[in-house]
Amino acid sequence: MAAASCQNPFRISLNLIEGSSFFSQKPELSALNFHPNVDFPRLGFYRSLTCKDRGGHVHCSSNNDGPVEEVLTPILDMIDNPMHLKNLSLKELKQLADDIRTELSIVSKTNKSFQPSLSAVELTVAIHHVFHAPVDKILWDMEDQTYPHKLLTGRRPLMNKSEKVDELSGYACRNEYDPFGAGHGCSSISSALGMAVARDIKGKRDRIVAVISNETTMAGQVYEAMSNAGYLDSNLVVILNDRHHSSNPKLDQAPKASINALSSTLSKLQSSQIFRKFRQLAKVLTKRVGRGMHEWAAKIDEYARGMVGPPGSTLFEELGLYYIGPVDGHNIEDLLCVLHEVASLDSMGPVLVHVVTKDDYIVEDKKTDPEEEKRLQGALALEGFPPNYRPQTYSDHFAKTLITESKIDEDIVVVHAGMGMESSFQTLKNKMRDKFFDVGMAEQHAVTFSAGLACGGLKPFCIIPSSFLQRAYDQVVHDVDRQKIPVRFVLTSAGLVGSDGATQSGAFDITFMSCLPNMIVMAPSDEFELSRMISTAVDIEDRPICFRYPRGAISSINPNLCLREPIEIGRGRLLIEGKDIALLGFGSMVQNCLRAHAVLKGLGLDVTVADARFCKPLDIKLVRLLCKNHRFLITVEEGSIGGFGAQVAHFISLDGLLDAGIKWRPITLPDNYIEGAQPEDQLNTAGLTGNHIAATALNLLGRTRDALLLMC
Amino acid sequence: MAAASCQNPFRISLNLIEGSSFFSQKPELSALNFHPNVDFPRLGFYRSLTCKDRGGHVHCSSNNDGPVEEVLTPILDMIDNPMHLKNLSLKELKQLADDIRTELSIVSKTNKSFQPSLSAVELTVAIHHVFHAPVDKILWDMEDQTYPHKLLTGRRPLMNKSEKVDELSGYACRNEYDPFGAGHGCSSISSALGMAVARDIKGKRDRIVAVISNETTMAGQVYEAMSNAGYLDSNLVVILNDRHHSSNPKLDQAPKASINALSSTLSKLQSSQIFRKFRQLAKVLTKRVGRGMHEWAAKIDEYARGMVGPPGSTLFEELGLYYIGPVDGHNIEDLLCVLHEVASLDSMGPVLVHVVTKDDYIVEDKKTDPEEEKRLQGALALEGFPPNYRPQTYSDHFAKTLITESKIDEDIVVVHAGMGMESSFQTLKNKMRDKFFDVGMAEQHAVTFSAGLACGGLKPFCIIPSSFLQRAYDQVVHDVDRQKIPVRFVLTSAGLVGSDGATQSGAFDITFMSCLPNMIVMAPSDEFELSRMISTAVDIEDRPICFRYPRGAISSINPNLCLREPIEIGRGRLLIEGKDIALLGFGSMVQNCLRAHAVLKGLGLDVTVADARFCKPLDIKLVRLLCKNHRFLITVEEGSIGGFGAQVAHFISLDGLLDAGIKWRPITLPDNYIEGAQPEDQLNTAGLTGNHIAATALNLLGRTRDALLLMC
Repeated sequence: MAAASCQNPFRISLNLIEGSSFFSQKPELSALNFHPNVDFPRLGFYRSLTCKDRGGHVHCSSNNDGPVEEVLTPILDMIDNPMHLKNLSLKELKQLADDIRTELSIVSKTNKSFQPSLSAVELTVAIHHVFHAPVDKILWDMEDQTYPHKLLTGRRPLMNKSEKVDELSGYACRNEYDPFGAGHGCSSISSALGMAVARDIKGKRDRIVAVISNETTMAGQVYEAMSNAGYLDSNLVVILNDRHHSSNPKLDQAPKASINALSSTLSKLQSSQIFRKFRQLAKVLTKRVGRGMHEWAAKIDEYARGMVGPPGSTLFEELGLYYIGPVDGHNIEDLLCVLHEVASLDSMGPVLVHVVTKDDYIVEDKKTDPEEEKRLQGALALEGFPPNYRPQTYSDHFAKTLITESKIDEDIVVVHAGMGMESSFQTLKNKMRDKFFDVGMAEQHAVTFSAGLACGGLKPFCIIPSSFLQRAYDQVVHDVDRQKIPVRFVLTSAGLVGSDGATQSGAFDITFMSCLPNMIVMAPSDEFELSRMISTAVDIEDRPICFRYPRGAISSINPNLCLREPIEIGRGRLLIEGKDIALLGFGSMVQNCLRAHAVLKGLGLDVTVADARFCKPLDIKLVRLLCKNHRFLITVEEGSIGGFGAQVAHFISLDGLLDAGIKWRPITLPDNYIEGAQPEDQLNTAGLTGNHIAATALNLLGRTRDALLLMC
Repeated sequence: MAAASCQNPFRISLNLIEGSSFFSQKPELSALNFHPNVDFPRLGFYRSLTCKDRGGHVHCSSNNDGPVEEVLTPILDMIDNPMHLKNLSLKELKQLADDIRTELSIVSKTNKSFQPSLSAVELTVAIHHVFHAPVDKILWDMEDQTYPHKLLTGRRPLMNKSEKVDELSGYACRNEYDPFGAGHGCSSISSALGMAVARDIKGKRDRIVAVISNETTMAGQVYEAMSNAGYLDSNLVVILNDRHHSSNPKLDQAPKASINALSSTLSKLQSSQIFRKFRQLAKVLTKRVGRGMHEWAAKIDEYARGMVGPPGSTLFEELGLYYIGPVDGHNIEDLLCVLHEVASLDSMGPVLVHVVTKDDYIVEDKKTDPEEEKRLQGALALEGFPPNYRPQTYSDHFAKTLITESKIDEDIVVVHAGMGMESSFQTLKNKMRDKFFDVGMAEQHAVTFSAGLACGGLKPFCIIPSSFLQRAYDQVVHDVDRQKIPVRFVLTSAGLVGSDGATQSGAFDITFMSCLPNMIVMAPSDEFELSRMISTAVDIEDRPICFRYPRGAISSINPNLCLREPIEIGRGRLLIEGKDIALLGFGSMVQNCLRAHAVLKGLGLDVTVADARFCKPLDIKLVRLLCKNHRFLITVEEGSIGGFGAQVAHFISLDGLLDAGIKWRPITLPDNYIEGAQPEDQLNTAGLTGNHIAATALNLLGRTRDALLLMC
């Protein structure tokens, strides 16, 4: 296995890349971890953790504003947009790549991890040198790989400001510079194909490049798109950034792609115009001669190349894409050569360029400043707690409880899907071993697979972030709910999710789950309730059940696991009995109802607070009681319209309670997408804080002045 | 190309199968057409079209009850369950296959098309001979292929009764005999894998077989599942029933799979235990010798087999399934041989058996009775219309209008996804030519592809049946709505769908679409409104828009296309002004509100009827007017809870209208799945007929006795 030629004087680590593993089922944790440390939002930890106060005042840990280190990025400093790359020499392009690495290593000290982007630095430089964005369309599939692209497309100023870094979206964004937004991955080939077809119909000649990663090749949509691309045969370049980092436990069993002198030469040969033209000619000729002949010619071409290519190469050919690769993704020279050839082809159909890169490709002269590290740790520490203390999240608590439950009930298995994996689930995985199935970005499969497990007599907990469950909605409806199969859905990251913004926020799950006839829809108001709901879910064996919890921290510092105490299905609870107004919260919003209660108590009001627990089946006794004893009922949920409030309204209307005089107000997420921000700012924007709820109550009671004062 | 040996004296058509095309993008019309003739439900045509009256009385066209023809099915008559197949000789099994064909040809005269099932007859017989259902799990992916399976698993009596045939579900069904239900296709590998893993964990030894078809290989979930199956390496048999019928316009360019003596021998060799054991041994040995060596050994095995296999074979290998095939799906001897080998393997991991079959495999001695045909035609004819008259559907009207629009605006393109294609869209496809993209069962891709087309400056209409849009919900949210990309969604088969029952019914779309912030959600109340909404959608260029319409017939016999008259966004219309009570209908339910109006008028009530047109943005002026001028407001929609009614409730609550005394009642689909039945029966079950609406109104007005009389 020879190392690819490495003439770059600035880089120290080797160019030798040993493996390719885009079929890996296991997206690595670190690359996609959602930085929970930065975003713990809900329960009082917030102020000590973050940089900005609710009011927008900047304080603490923002010493980064000034230049931290004097690192020269001479070439990068000259680049404002991709046009400035065009006249750079190879040596300068290599310098540019190093500049980008240096820049990212500086910015990454602000807690934003740019690690996955390091794999795509040379690739990005090569793409922007060869193609002409924004006329040519460059589409990215995954967040986190796009930062070099963002640096080169005029968004460097945003990244350089540390206080802005939390707001900087890793996702491609149509509002900024990109032709298409990408949040959930795996969409780029589909959208690129659409643009390619539109271009052909419009008679334009721009080129379209979609960059996908090995994580997204787990998602079914990629196959749908490639197969359709192969069929439609539009000119389209798909670049597979095959990042070596993905850990595949069975790696030693799988044949590896090796990049060596041979494969380098071959991929150049494959992409050369003469070779491709020859192949076209051969195709036409053999077609004329006879179909049997053509069949064999095509096969020999395909499989002959398959023999020298890495695993997967013929897969793309089967789907109709012309495979080129593997190319060393850190060798700019090779990349330029291949991409130039690809770009200059006039009529090529869809091409797949397989680029193998390394995630841990590090510039070794990057110095870590111990003072700086200490400072950062300090910024994340909580007052009164040891410096390395990390508050527990709902997911931590979920994992702990489920481990306890699985010791009692050995039928419990876990299926995990979605982009990346929270560290708590990593722990769960280690404990559950063979009973934990991480299927990566294959949510559709995850849901039906769970249904199969349940049919086989097991008790599957299917963990999917709320917004990713949207990808498997039909499977939830038809493979689970319609058949009343007891799959336990655990919807993480429900509601607003801080800096990950609208792409990851789980706004719609209450709505789209509670309209399903057989589904039990729950949400815990705190960690103790979460434990109880897990027990409840374990016990339910005749229909599907789901519960949602937010991304943030739980309120207890060291919650003891409570006794195993399942909740009766459809039974909410009255937390505080009052008389002036009733607040009926669902899930995490119960906490904000309690905050509103405290505020209103201070204003002399006697407020009832109830925890609905179930959106479906609704606790109709509780709702009737609230309606009977109060003039006003406010429902509060961190979800879109059509969810919990709608269920309550439907019931109280049909039950005649609405006619009997109760005044009902729904508080939901507003009808727009809430962009990435500090969690408390987001709640403020959404109008879901305790103060907002209190103000709604005051307005209902006619005390508009008090309400106004509260919001000032 | 040699014909496979055909020793069956009962069959007349040849066994020679020339091609395989599971990558085809175009599911054929006939196989999956939804028999619109049988189910025209809504507008008065019903009674003359169907067999049963609303009250359940059987009348007209049910002469089929008695034996129509005296056809002997000697072997089939002996089979009550799959165990009875075990001792049959090869000759008897062949006779059984012919019996099944004969039986299906009789039953198919009741308008239920069993054509696709004809391809799977021998396969089904072979599967049930080799595997032991229900201990071994046999899972089917697609409807319509399962009828032979149903015949052999005790459901023959149901199929033999012509009045029951419309209620007989083509789908696998857990309530009947099947281990897993399947409605939307492409789920069987995922669920089979779940069962296989559960079996391994539970230490059982049953075998699991998933049968997929070439249509479902278009769906991404199949790749997700296969890739995961390859990774988990559980014992699992996937049988690809590669039906030749799929029309691929580029077929002549694609290499074909040919079944000949060589491939027959090869697939037997591949599946033979000795060969597989040798391969295992070779794997272990080479792994010991060294990785480099192993890599090449695996590759040579894979590609050597790839060279002789059909296209697609290495694809499955790449995904981790051991490929065996192609096998002639009409040669029971070959099938038995291969399946026996596969079934007897102890530790095999997932295996894919590629079976090539023909859809148009017909028993030639099937006699068509001209009298019978005439009678059937008569049963379908409408009184007062020529015998071959077929009432126009909403889809027909949609296609016509869109063709007119596309003559004016050449940016209009159409993307179609979902199982099968209605004949009206076939017409549209022929007219639109290169501007019509049928992507088959790749709904996720269809949506993002449409977004790409819109980004490229075109005006895509994305046609997906309501229930299939569930498969692409995340793409609708993130690739379209969040980015405000003007994709026009056309949701067909919205609401209840007659005999296709719960699997195809579009119950949830209003709910899951109207919670999206940027989406315009419309529904036409008749065909003229549909035309106007199409024009509206053409004109909207700044955000996504969707409209839904039912499967049934339109009210006009020959509707003239109206003038191009787009509707102002968010503007409903008052149809009839009254004062006692206001009915606000959405979509097709406006017609039932009008029926209710007629009934109530007869009872001396003065009723207002309004057509909301928009669920989002709501016509708040109209709603305010209705609330101001009436004491009672009833919202009516053919959709689940959380949709139109919830939007209205949310608004009138926040606007204070609810407090001001209006009494609101929502009428929605009930909170359960409505099984296949005659459309009018379904509406009755759902409580959505004009009488139901009128009864609700009477109850609200305190005239409970009148309401009761109405429902008797």
